[in-house]
Amino acid sequence: MSTHEKMIPPPAVLLLAAGQGKRMKSVLPKVLHEICGEPLLIPILRSIDSAFGTDAVSVNVGIIVGHGREKVEAAVRSAVKEDPTLRHLKVDFILQAEQKGTGHAVHSAMESTWGSLRLKEKANVLVLPGDSPLIPPALVGEIGRPLEKNTAIRLLTCDVPDPRGYGRVLRLGFKAAGKVKRIVEEKDASPRERKITEVAASIYLFQSTFLANFLPKLTTKNAQGEYYLTDLIEWAGKGTAASRTKVSTLAWANAEDLRGVNDLWELSLAERALQLRLIERHARNGVRFLDPSSVAIEASVVIGERVRIERGAILRGHTTIGNDVEIGSNVVLKNMRIGNSVELKTGSYCLDSVVESGAKIGPYAHLRPDSLVGKGAKIGNFVELKKSKIGENTSIAHLSYVGDAAIGARVNIGCGFITCNFDGRSKKGSRKHETVIEDDAFIGSDCQTVAPVKVGRGAYVASGSTITLDVEAGSLAIARSRQENKIGYAKKFRPE
Amino acid sequence: MSTHEKMIPPPAVLLLAAGQGKRMKSVLPKVLHEICGEPLLIPILRSIDSAFGTDAVSVNVGIIVGHGREKVEAAVRSAVKEDPTLRHLKVDFILQAEQKGTGHAVHSAMESTWGSLRLKEKANVLVLPGDSPLIPPALVGEIGRPLEKNTAIRLLTCDVPDPRGYGRVLRLGFKAAGKVKRIVEEKDASPRERKITEVAASIYLFQSTFLANFLPKLTTKNAQGEYYLTDLIEWAGKGTAASRTKVSTLAWANAEDLRGVNDLWELSLAERALQLRLIERHARNGVRFLDPSSVAIEASVVIGERVRIERGAILRGHTTIGNDVEIGSNVVLKNMRIGNSVELKTGSYCLDSVVESGAKIGPYAHLRPDSLVGKGAKIGNFVELKKSKIGENTSIAHLSYVGDAAIGARVNIGCGFITCNFDGRSKKGSRKHETVIEDDAFIGSDCQTVAPVKVGRGAYVASGSTITLDVEAGSLAIARSRQENKIGYAKKFRPE
Amino acid sequence: MSTHEKMIPPPAVLLLAAGQGKRMKSVLPKVLHEICGEPLLIPILRSIDSAFGTDAVSVNVGIIVGHGREKVEAAVRSAVKEDPTLRHLKVDFILQAEQKGTGHAVHSAMESTWGSLRLKEKANVLVLPGDSPLIPPALVGEIGRPLEKNTAIRLLTCDVPDPRGYGRVLRLGFKAAGKVKRIVEEKDASPRERKITEVAASIYLFQSTFLANFLPKLTTKNAQGEYYLTDLIEWAGKGTAASRTKVSTLAWANAEDLRGVNDLWELSLAERALQLRLIERHARNGVRFLDPSSVAIEASVVIGERVRIERGAILRGHTTIGNDVEIGSNVVLKNMRIGNSVELKTGSYCLDSVVESGAKIGPYAHLRPDSLVGKGAKIGNFVELKKSKIGENTSIAHLSYVGDAAIGARVNIGCGFITCNFDGRSKKGSRKHETVIEDDAFIGSDCQTVAPVKVGRGAYVASGSTITLDVEAGSLAIARSRQENKIGYAKKFRPE
Repeated sequence: MSTHEKMIPPPAVLLLAAGQGKRMKSVLPKVLHEICGEPLLIPILRSIDSAFGTDAVSVNVGIIVGHGREKVEAAVRSAVKEDPTLRHLKVDFILQAEQKGTGHAVHSAMESTWGSLRLKEKANVLVLPGDSPLIPPALVGEIGRPLEKNTAIRLLTCDVPDPRGYGRVLRLGFKAAGKVKRIVEEKDASPRERKITEVAASIYLFQSTFLANFLPKLTTKNAQGEYYLTDLIEWAGKGTAASRTKVSTLAWANAEDLRGVNDLWELSLAERALQLRLIERHARNGVRFLDPSSVAIEASVVIGERVRIERGAILRGHTTIGNDVEIGSNVVLKNMRIGNSVELKTGSYCLDSVVESGAKIGPYAHLRPDSLVGKGAKIGNFVELKKSKIGENTSIAHLSYVGDAAIGARVNIGCGFITCNFDGRSKKGSRKHETVIEDDAFIGSDCQTVAPVKVGRGAYVASGSTITLDVEAGSLAIARSRQENKIGYAKKFRPE
Repeated sequence: MSTHEKMIPPPAVLLLAAGQGKRMKSVLPKVLHEICGEPLLIPILRSIDSAFGTDAVSVNVGIIVGHGREKVEAAVRSAVKEDPTLRHLKVDFILQAEQKGTGHAVHSAMESTWGSLRLKEKANVLVLPGDSPLIPPALVGEIGRPLEKNTAIRLLTCDVPDPRGYGRVLRLGFKAAGKVKRIVEEKDASPRERKITEVAASIYLFQSTFLANFLPKLTTKNAQGEYYLTDLIEWAGKGTAASRTKVSTLAWANAEDLRGVNDLWELSLAERALQLRLIERHARNGVRFLDPSSVAIEASVVIGERVRIERGAILRGHTTIGNDVEIGSNVVLKNMRIGNSVELKTGSYCLDSVVESGAKIGPYAHLRPDSLVGKGAKIGNFVELKKSKIGENTSIAHLSYVGDAAIGARVNIGCGFITCNFDGRSKKGSRKHETVIEDDAFIGSDCQTVAPVKVGRGAYVASGSTITLDVEAGSLAIARSRQENKIGYAKKFRPE
Repeated sequence: MSTHEKMIPPPAVLLLAAGQGKRMKSVLPKVLHEICGEPLLIPILRSIDSAFGTDAVSVNVGIIVGHGREKVEAAVRSAVKEDPTLRHLKVDFILQAEQKGTGHAVHSAMESTWGSLRLKEKANVLVLPGDSPLIPPALVGEIGRPLEKNTAIRLLTCDVPDPRGYGRVLRLGFKAAGKVKRIVEEKDASPRERKITEVAASIYLFQSTFLANFLPKLTTKNAQGEYYLTDLIEWAGKGTAASRTKVSTLAWANAEDLRGVNDLWELSLAERALQLRLIERHARNGVRFLDPSSVAIEASVVIGERVRIERGAILRGHTTIGNDVEIGSNVVLKNMRIGNSVELKTGSYCLDSVVESGAKIGPYAHLRPDSLVGKGAKIGNFVELKKSKIGENTSIAHLSYVGDAAIGARVNIGCGFITCNFDGRSKKGSRKHETVIEDDAFIGSDCQTVAPVKVGRGAYVASGSTITLDVEAGSLAIARSRQENKIGYAKKFRPE
């Protein structure tokens, strides 16, 4: 939608998000299940903002909540507050205490303070499902355009190869171009009606006066014993309202956009579709994916230029990736800040930490939270960092554990290094102690530092030493036994 | 099929499993190649059991074997014995010494003791291919319903976009609803016939008297010089038998169900299709898959409630997963028993072991066979267990090897711990020795225990110690050198 | 194409490879972006060779270069020199200094020395796009057959469901079988024309005299201001040339074959398609893929018989795999030579090295360049090799780093072994030193060897020793402290 078109006042939006989602087999309310790292109902909120919102125009969205309403409200409030792509939304919550069908949900909204405060007379009301995360901005924009004259309802329809589960669109004479008579739900449909492939997608634009007049007339005489919003179609089609009684339809070509989520299988399918769209966008912006369908990248991830991502990488949370970064196969990043020209090799597993420009990580390095790897530093294979700061151009190349440590710049740490940071006291009194190694120190292989301890600037620790005392700057520390060779003794241990 | 319908006596089933499968390029008989962790012919046996079997009715299945018959028989016998989903099958094996075509195979069966003992007069005989693992119970049930009156054969057909390789169904006047004249094999088909998209799927229900009369009349006058079972269609169609001579067809919509396996590419494709069906079932039961198409879960795996499975996980063999378990990316489990609320992090590789409730494993932990991780225990990154028992709430968090050990409860084992369990004697006399560490002991980092050795309850081993002697309960053991700092000596090692 | 057909002289081929590919968002020329491990324009060169080349007939290919011409020429020269599947190509490069459209490109070629030297009178000129790596040999062979009499152009067309972005084929009366009038580019097409689903694929065979006559007449009067090669169609269709003026078309069924690459998303999609074709070929040759769509295998990789490849494996560069090899999940191999009956377990990461027959690697082993693992040797979990030779039947089973070392046969190296090969001198003067361990030596766990150092044949090094001096053959070396147990002292460290 162009900026010009956005100047037309947007409709009021009602988002249906009260359902429990029994088939999800989870205590979580359905719309809070995660998809690409965020609650299921966030992507459609983003589409609404993108379709109608401008800095001048905020969009009035009433979210109908019920099951787990506190959690839903908290999740939406937090997202709207923090996510700039939702900044044009003005969100209210409307309680639907009991779930008696879509008609009841919209009726609850019209009767609520939202209905009286937010809804202007003769406004258009756009009703959208909260469990259809693939609905794109273009669809929201199209269905939300002002209603044609004398029209009470605009109905979104789609022709699908397998219409099972959907409400079918019944037209006069069973003809594609015939006037819409009504929607029949799967459970209420005759065999002949079930063969209809034009389905209704629970997406409607209503004229508000029409809603106010006819919602109270809905009944529960149907297979599910619920108030069906779709019954309104029939009445409008019959032209019983004096003015604006027509039903228009908007045919949508891409059925995938309408995919709803009712169980964890459908969630997985919707997630992959949404995921591929996110990845396609990154790829067209210049990210090289060696195998796009194998990676997972959450919506919140930001990726720079000329980045190369191998198969199986997983990028989650508030991760930002600089330019010219190489991400190896099966690398996992969560809430990571990665500088420019960083190389993250196969299988590295990195959480809540920072890697500065030019650093090399892995393969199979493990960065636990609150670590910082300085510019040009190297964290090699089978190395675990925890809550540690590693200075510029420092190298920890092999098989080490560095926890609660501050390591300076240009330090070389040999293989098998261990910071003994835990003093073994009982849980209650246990403490982790700090290790400090200053700039330009050299730590030989198989050394341990028993914290709290400090190795001074430029000091040298001999291989195989357990360091329990501070080492002065420039000193050599050694703590190992002299070697003894016993000639011919090997055979005692190897009798044959 | 409802229980009521199951009370109709099932047909006798003949499963064709004698072929070598040259294009598989393997010494293994074709039907023994694995698909989702079991031999290729097991899934169709399961469909047969599911379609017809009840605790009151066992299903008579004759399996025609030839190439590698001993191996095939052993594999089937073992599966039928151990797998409860096959418990209603009564399996016999029929030798087809030479493979001279499908007609010859069925003829061999009719002439065999199976034919005389198991086959009642005027029974129906269902012929199924042993190399089509995607045939579902519904298909088996439908094709196996009692034959209509005056009908000799029911033929399963399918309309496929690309009919290459299949036998085509020739109908009178080349019309879709025309009477079936005959089946023409690809190699014998004219160009016009090859354009027919209705194909026969080597799935038939025969009236047994018809078979007895006409099988002896088959010849080998065709492109492949084999006895074609499909030639029977033509004779039945011609009405040369006095009674029950008609051919009926059952059209099957889902071509994927009929996918046969003739080479390793087709095996891979069939396996992915079968795999996705298994995963869909788990997902609809409440398992959350972050990327269903990326995981492998064998048919024998059992998964509890509210389990979350990240991308790339591989679950093989007799693995059972409790409730509320988190399985990280690329975790490999084989024959594992996993309790409730266990967390298995990225890349952990676990074989033939037990992980009790509340334990945390990985990332990149390696559990070798015969290990047991107790409740609430933690096995961290780059830790290898082998044939060891780890007590409750014990922690082995980093870079360690624990083999042939019994570790008590609440033990804390530091980083870099090694059980030296191998005494280095020659292969012949070599022995692995046991390490015992009792409850509440604390082992500092970079310690080794030279087995056989025991560390008593609540003992404390100082970091950097090689323990060769038993440590009494409550004692402190230390075996390391005193540290010496040589002031200013570092520069000798770092000349610039 | 049969050998007989190959005896017909092939056309001269012009490959368009001058474009920058702005949408690739990269400094690399478009045709040098990698696909399955080689530059984008190599696969079509391979198809050209396969379609026309024989040992008797070399194929004359003019590659039109522009952006990054030096790099493109170097890459092609190197590929043609080293890759035997390109050996029948005789490649020349033609500079198109400015990119003014496809017509200009072909015109440049005709005017160049290539045009005068390589092009025989009345030859056929096959024009192919350099950015369409999925064009198969069969397509090249078909379009390249000698032109029919009185025909100036053979045009490849394809019926596609979504024709957006392609030039549409306009036929007389908008009929499928109508005479071709002209091609209209997307940007120049009317709404009605845009609905045409028959598209032109930038693949043409031209009669050279026709080209010579009409190329100079092209103009830039169109939406993009370029010389369109497609304008020639219109002129030929009009019959303005005295002889051979007809346009014939070759309809190609498989639209995927024509997939072009204009951005990194399209590159990813084309790569997956090409990758699956490579994998299908390996599978049909007898390689067992547990999940074909999850693996990456570059075109240069050679795989033996009865090889089993688990999900997520990545095989790159000049890797060769012997027979009966097992490749575990997520194993990464680059430029590796793997012998027979080798087992590579989950997550092993191996570069530029050799693994001899019967060896076992991993899980999670890391072979850095210039390593050699001898027959029957074992490199276990979390072991890193660098520039080292490991003798036959030697075992390095756990958590070790071996760099710059020569290890003999039948050596047993315990867990936690480290070669201290770096002496810690400044970058300028730093040196890596060698470690030698001779046949049948036994190295206990947690040992380090400070290089340069040598452990003699059959020597025994006690666990926990730091070896700084050579160990004579048959000697026992020990360098550790005596253990002291302090009765009751543990409570000092564990106050509760």
